Amino acid sequence: MMREYLQRKIELVNKELDSIYLEQDALNSTLAKSMNYSLMAGGKRLRPVLLMAAADAVGANGENFVHLATSIEMIHTYSLIHDDLPAMDNDDYRRGKLTNHKVFGDGVAVLAGDALLTMAFEVIADSPNVDVAKKLKIVKEISHAAGPEGMVGGQVIDLESEGKHIDMNTLQKMHRAKTGALFCAAIRSGAILGDATDKQLEALTEYARQFGLAFQITDDILDVTGDEASIGKPVGSDEKNHKSTYVTLGSLQSAKDLAQKAVDNAKEALKDFGTEADFLREIVDYLISRKK
Amino acid sequence: MMREYLQRKIELVNKELDSIYLEQDALNSTLAKSMNYSLMAGGKRLRPVLLMAAADAVGANGENFVHLATSIEMIHTYSLIHDDLPAMDNDDYRRGKLTNHKVFGDGVAVLAGDALLTMAFEVIADSPNVDVAKKLKIVKEISHAAGPEGMVGGQVIDLESEGKHIDMNTLQKMHRAKTGALFCAAIRSGAILGDATDKQLEALTEYARQFGLAFQITDDILDVTGDEASIGKPVGSDEKNHKSTYVTLGSLQSAKDLAQKAVDNAKEALKDFGTEADFLREIVDYLISRKK
Repeated sequence: MMREYLQRKIELVNKELDSIYLEQDALNSTLAKSMNYSLMAGGKRLRPVLLMAAADAVGANGENFVHLATSIEMIHTYSLIHDDLPAMDNDDYRRGKLTNHKVFGDGVAVLAGDALLTMAFEVIADSPNVDVAKKLKIVKEISHAAGPEGMVGGQVIDLESEGKHIDMNTLQKMHRAKTGALFCAAIRSGAILGDATDKQLEALTEYARQFGLAFQITDDILDVTGDEASIGKPVGSDEKNHKSTYVTLGSLQSAKDLAQKAVDNAKEALKDFGTEADFLREIVDYLISRKK
Repeated sequence: MMREYLQRKIELVNKELDSIYLEQDALNSTLAKSMNYSLMAGGKRLRPVLLMAAADAVGANGENFVHLATSIEMIHTYSLIHDDLPAMDNDDYRRGKLTNHKVFGDGVAVLAGDALLTMAFEVIADSPNVDVAKKLKIVKEISHAAGPEGMVGGQVIDLESEGKHIDMNTLQKMHRAKTGALFCAAIRSGAILGDATDKQLEALTEYARQFGLAFQITDDILDVTGDEASIGKPVGSDEKNHKSTYVTLGSLQSAKDLAQKAVDNAKEALKDFGTEADFLREIVDYLISRKK
């Protein structure tokens, strides 16, 4: 059941992203190509899927909100483009494909990221099936999560930690901001769109926190145990780059234990939800068993 | 009268920017310092002042909207930070001060720009004295103006035109997108906030277009006639860089004539407005007589 649900939602997101791209009256074709290159580079679409799934979990039909959901994928994609730049992680490959700046040059890559981030807010404002008050709440959720106190703040901590030993507290703070905040905003946005009660919103927020944690620990584990062809980047790069991770600060086993604990906590947060939340329950298991 | 009005509005904007910065629970002090460095680097605050002036012109009190107005200054500031990067214009100085990346490094400069852009939308969402429907309209105005069909689209045309001869049509298209669109969004946002009629909104949009044109032509003229100490960058850099401008595509005199025509057209667009629009009338004269 979970795989069909996931596949269907991913296809919906891809179709919607495609139509937004086609609708765009491209002022400049280089920019449009560069934006599209990264948007369509085979992402897992986890954030928009989680948004729709959270709306489903509170009894709404998440698919009605696919247009708005693509905004979060645009923000995620922009962050990857900027993260890969020579001034940051200086990565040549992502998901087995050349990174944006390797294809389009550093200048266009910076601007393609800027354009995706900006356009995300226009997509929210233009979304059908959503009243203005909810749209504005979501502008607030997402801008806060992606901004200086969220994702971008986490990126700067990451940049400053390069090659340095950091402690577990700093590591957690960094990941909560860098990846956790946007997961949280995706799930909370879905809950808001689906008219969640305050109690449901709180439970889904806790689910999102644990989800983000399990996601990040799994990323760190895959850097050690993963298969280069599957993850699309060299294995063992964290250790080589003296990067502090949940594995290097503990052990492979302690990281696996922490990940399992986060999965259990995520499911526990959903205890008052019915079968509508089954996808959210199942995807955390899938998450820590993933190979890429 | 104009100078007092301008001075008062600039001080309000600076005070508001200061308080937003202080309120910010800085997740990372490097990021906060970098954002603040460029926000407080002595900008003319033209865009937020125009927003407030447009609200005044339709009979509202523009000063009520100073919080929202700072969002446009944040977007303008982010665009300057990214524009100065080595991957783009590679400028070491702006307004006589070192550019952001020269002080904080390329990586932090990219992220400070990202943070300012993202935070701008949170500032809109949080603005007092504005109902949700208007806020959402303004999110749409500004995201469209700053996005791939506006400012960022214009930046890519600029990047692709480097060292190449471009014709007058391309030059106009580039500037309308790169600088014109955000002026337009500032003025239209002020008009919307002040409950402009459709006819007033249309007239102010035309004013904004002519304003943006006069602004850009004056920039090109100053690159030839300006004083290095006043404009804070080397004079004659456009010609040295083989950059197509309103001066190099015509002559100094033809550029001056075009600028004067845009000023006349801007004032003509305000013909049905009363004395409430006097500031907007006077500032276009000031604009083409400016020395920096």
